[in-house]
Amino acid sequence: MPSSLTPAVLAELQRIVGDRGLITAVNQLQTYECDGLTAFRVLPSAVLLPESTGQVQQILRLCHRERIPFVARGSGTGLSGGALPTEGCLVITFSRMNRILAVDLANQQITVQPGVINSNVTAAVSPHGYFYAPDPSSQTVCTIGGNIAENAGGAHCLKYGFTVTHVLEMTVVLPNGDLVTLGAKTPNAPGYDLAGVFIGSEGTLGIATEMTLRIMRKPETVQVILAAFNTIQAAAQSVSDVIASGQLPAAMEIMDRLSIEAAEISVHPNYPSCEALLLIELDGPEAEVNLQMQTVTDICRGNGAWETRLAIDEQDRFLIWKGRKAAFAAAGRLSPNYIVQDGVIPRTSLPAVLEKLNAMAVAENLRVTNVFHAGDGNLHPIVLYNRENPGEEERAIDLSLRILDVCVEAGGSITGEHGVGREKQCSMSYMFSDPDLETMQRVRHAFDPLDLSNPEKLFPTPRICGERSRGAYAPHPLETSGIAEVF
Amino acid sequence: MPSSLTPAVLAELQRIVGDRGLITAVNQLQTYECDGLTAFRVLPSAVLLPESTGQVQQILRLCHRERIPFVARGSGTGLSGGALPTEGCLVITFSRMNRILAVDLANQQITVQPGVINSNVTAAVSPHGYFYAPDPSSQTVCTIGGNIAENAGGAHCLKYGFTVTHVLEMTVVLPNGDLVTLGAKTPNAPGYDLAGVFIGSEGTLGIATEMTLRIMRKPETVQVILAAFNTIQAAAQSVSDVIASGQLPAAMEIMDRLSIEAAEISVHPNYPSCEALLLIELDGPEAEVNLQMQTVTDICRGNGAWETRLAIDEQDRFLIWKGRKAAFAAAGRLSPNYIVQDGVIPRTSLPAVLEKLNAMAVAENLRVTNVFHAGDGNLHPIVLYNRENPGEEERAIDLSLRILDVCVEAGGSITGEHGVGREKQCSMSYMFSDPDLETMQRVRHAFDPLDLSNPEKLFPTPRICGERSRGAYAPHPLETSGIAEVF
Repeated sequence: MPSSLTPAVLAELQRIVGDRGLITAVNQLQTYECDGLTAFRVLPSAVLLPESTGQVQQILRLCHRERIPFVARGSGTGLSGGALPTEGCLVITFSRMNRILAVDLANQQITVQPGVINSNVTAAVSPHGYFYAPDPSSQTVCTIGGNIAENAGGAHCLKYGFTVTHVLEMTVVLPNGDLVTLGAKTPNAPGYDLAGVFIGSEGTLGIATEMTLRIMRKPETVQVILAAFNTIQAAAQSVSDVIASGQLPAAMEIMDRLSIEAAEISVHPNYPSCEALLLIELDGPEAEVNLQMQTVTDICRGNGAWETRLAIDEQDRFLIWKGRKAAFAAAGRLSPNYIVQDGVIPRTSLPAVLEKLNAMAVAENLRVTNVFHAGDGNLHPIVLYNRENPGEEERAIDLSLRILDVCVEAGGSITGEHGVGREKQCSMSYMFSDPDLETMQRVRHAFDPLDLSNPEKLFPTPRICGERSRGAYAPHPLETSGIAEVF
Repeated sequence: MPSSLTPAVLAELQRIVGDRGLITAVNQLQTYECDGLTAFRVLPSAVLLPESTGQVQQILRLCHRERIPFVARGSGTGLSGGALPTEGCLVITFSRMNRILAVDLANQQITVQPGVINSNVTAAVSPHGYFYAPDPSSQTVCTIGGNIAENAGGAHCLKYGFTVTHVLEMTVVLPNGDLVTLGAKTPNAPGYDLAGVFIGSEGTLGIATEMTLRIMRKPETVQVILAAFNTIQAAAQSVSDVIASGQLPAAMEIMDRLSIEAAEISVHPNYPSCEALLLIELDGPEAEVNLQMQTVTDICRGNGAWETRLAIDEQDRFLIWKGRKAAFAAAGRLSPNYIVQDGVIPRTSLPAVLEKLNAMAVAENLRVTNVFHAGDGNLHPIVLYNRENPGEEERAIDLSLRILDVCVEAGGSITGEHGVGREKQCSMSYMFSDPDLETMQRVRHAFDPLDLSNPEKLFPTPRICGERSRGAYAPHPLETSGIAEVF
């Protein structure tokens, strides 16, 4: 426990949140020592469970006065260590701030607290014909607060956009305890779009304690088709062809043989046994969906799909998605240990990048299985390994990081939706130039000059990254090269 | 001319941009003394026309060294004085940086320089079946650089979103001359979304010198319908009903009688003569559009539309839009002087707010005509007046600002797409609390610690605003009030 968390400070915290709002017993603190990235563990000094915005303000004012770092936490399902405690920190968790505060159907808005579970937002408005679009695989357990910190995506972000598209306004407690309103309930508000900066800032700019979300009308019809291919490349080509044809499906997902098998063992979705499965969901008015489904089916057939199967009913569709969403956890059926990686590449590079990743896996004698949001080029390679084999965990971590380098080299990025957190901070300097990162740091200090809000995350630090930082990529303006047409 | 713009500095600037890139003659400088908000005029010290990112870097390094403020300018069509020079500033204009640098159809991207005219982006990709969605009324003359500064909208932003949705990556010269890359060509990049902050920052954070934009497939079919109503309220109700029915038209615009008459005199679009004209554009696959058009027509008829007319062909559709887009300029046919205002309100408040604005106009004995993006609640009330009548201009300005107060009170905002600029900076403290504005200022200083980039805009300053700042609106968290359902 750092010197600043004195008995007097603890007593003050207890007065703010009450007896039930403060955890200090070591056996209880262990629940909070990591999130979904279990390779890193740090015991927090204390855990707080505030019940109101006012309590969060009081906590952060105290942290500011005493220079105590804090880490906000939702359900702890994050995959990049974003909610990993820092040495000597307080963890602030939101299980007691889980109320839906207001529903405004006419303006398609809902106001909630950060501890509300993602799928409970849809549940609250579903009887009226509405839904909340962002749907991370963990949506039945993860919270809206965590979704905002990570700018969570999900299979349907291809059509509907990430969390940032669906958050209108937030009440935010700054690291000094000040209260600000970011964003607005009407579109395109004046001033800087600080809601946009806050969303996806991985807890480094303060804590959102109330948020107004956009809800959408449920589509009239939803249809899902499964297409079985002999190669990943053929499936990937179909994805590019569907987009080029002008369709915008609600989701396009690819699973490879290993993932199909894992899902099959785990939740029995009755997938066809093949090298690559392409799952396409279309939604909208029935006439339109029928028309589009014909086009999509033709494209898949044209690329060699030897089976195309339409979900016959709601139940069947649910099962198909259950298999896809269980794919990460199901990797545990294939291997004692695994790392889920999360890179993004231009959609058109899919076939070439997949070939390269495959060669890298073969060279390391490691199995890599792929499940990905193919429509927006968001790969989720899962590196399988066995911690018991000497050196294998190190090789797996190294391979998973080199996969990100390949993504950046292909013009992509080191994370699509899992965030940088503690896991990928050393890859940031591979993607951003020094002035890029310095500008972000200055923005961070505009919100948090003392580095109290989730410190030692997101940005590369010499202490953590040492020599891995491979130096800056300078931006290369195109203007000197004339017109480069890449049709 | 301020002391810092010495002959030596001028010579240095001339060496950077060459003889043809520097304007110092007073009669030539007058072109740049205002933008579309002609009520404010300041002569710049010099105007620069750089030809490359490197030249912009050199200029800003020199400005930084010599503490010279600068104002970037596109075509000068802005309506809020965003490109108004500051006393002693340099104006940097982009008419020589107007090239399209790369087109990547497979990934639906185009890379351009800031001086490219908005409609030239669509022109470049239109033969391949693509278009660039943001379409401000001034699109045939305004530049992409200016669109980014103002986060420009347009009639079709209802469906397609504002400029921020369509800019993927930018090369930006910071006010100290450093080069950074904001955003990324793949979705949801890690780190802070600084592209989102930059877009709509009204030139206060630096200068974008190269931008990669998202282009979209042209829809298979586009149809426009005109519906004539006896009241604005009935037209507004139809807009709400269309949205509530689950349709998302490409555009929904309302014009009142005065605007219809002005457009008719100006470009003869052959509009029906009525109290309120609702213009709805649908786009998408033909089968879908036909289906939706039936629903939309039924809704309009149900709300009392006594004429509904479908554009018979491309030519007819073009003419209908020409009338709408000419509406601001056409106000000049109604009155020697006018102010175009730009407020946003929740769509459901349209009927009540319009009634209130009408009463305010009557009380001031001033005519106010309305043309607005009804789908997203973006009003454009045009206050007509005659400068020759003593006191009338002051009353017109005061009325136009009080209209914004009504918008804020209805839960809306002081600008939808024209920006704050010099015109509305004093209304900012009516919309934002002190901590909100202070946080924005700190972010500004993260980019521009010396306040050199378009200073004295956007934020309220005591020098300019004096007593008009009516003090801060504190955010009101809902959590204490229980569930408020507003169905």
